[in-house]
Amino acid sequence: MVILGIDPGYATTGYGLIKQDGDQFTVIDYGVITTTKETAHADRIVQTVNDLLQLIRRHKPEQIAMEELFFSKNTTTALKVSESRGGILYALGQLEKELVEYKPNQVKQNICGYGGAPKIQIQKMVQILLNLDSPPKPDDAADALAIAICHANHLKPNIKIVP
Amino acid sequence: MVILGIDPGYATTGYGLIKQDGDQFTVIDYGVITTTKETAHADRIVQTVNDLLQLIRRHKPEQIAMEELFFSKNTTTALKVSESRGGILYALGQLEKELVEYKPNQVKQNICGYGGAPKIQIQKMVQILLNLDSPPKPDDAADALAIAICHANHLKPNIKIVP
Repeated sequence: MVILGIDPGYATTGYGLIKQDGDQFTVIDYGVITTTKETAHADRIVQTVNDLLQLIRRHKPEQIAMEELFFSKNTTTALKVSESRGGILYALGQLEKELVEYKPNQVKQNICGYGGAPKIQIQKMVQILLNLDSPPKPDDAADALAIAICHANHLKPNIKIVP
Repeated sequence: MVILGIDPGYATTGYGLIKQDGDQFTVIDYGVITTTKETAHADRIVQTVNDLLQLIRRHKPEQIAMEELFFSKNTTTALKVSESRGGILYALGQLEKELVEYKPNQVKQNICGYGGAPKIQIQKMVQILLNLDSPPKPDDAADALAIAICHANHLKPNIKIVP
């Protein structure tokens, strides 16, 4: 089963595609979609969403998971990330693709065993679980892979995500 | 020229369609799009955006204006409104419909002459400018009509919106 994880953003959106085969995970693709300041506000959202749709068309994931926004101190950024999230929710809703959302601490709890795990520990665990030579880069791509793994684990019987 | 004003929201999105003919404004349609708690999160965004697209197909506005989000104390609401805004920005961007955005104080300044005008004063001015028997209801629809008028005024030569 192919699973797409999305770490939504405004300037940078991480994506991670994994294949789950029983207890085995393999990486299909990961990276970031970036938009620049020179691009008009609405166009940045359109570009982010359309690049994601292209990835979905290419890899045809059977499951999609996205990170919920943890409210940050930078409220301006939070509103822009929410706008990107809204564009993604709309576009995938139109495709009738189900999208499951996880809070950041749910992802950390699932991957590392506790909700307060630091970023580097998540990256190390993602590296181990996906059998990579080094932790995946950049951070947003590693986060997206973590979300995909979290969702894959959630789909297994007998594993529950702590809310 | 037909202008659509949008006051974006999550549970309630106001819309107002006006026709501008020189200095004259006439109302075409106004109201609210509502979504309920019983509807799944992403579906509320899809419903809001698709109802707006239906209004656009029906009335074919030549200009569209939307209110920017003023950051409120209720951050959870602000993030959800931003998600609706993101869905709208994406869908209209896909249609290649230009969408102009105004801050709440720009709308107030334009309609009432000062950026701190109370809601009731905006509603009274909208009533007068659109030659209505009473202030338009509900509030979100009145706000959407105000945004449409603000944009109409902005399109006239010699009127500048104070940023």
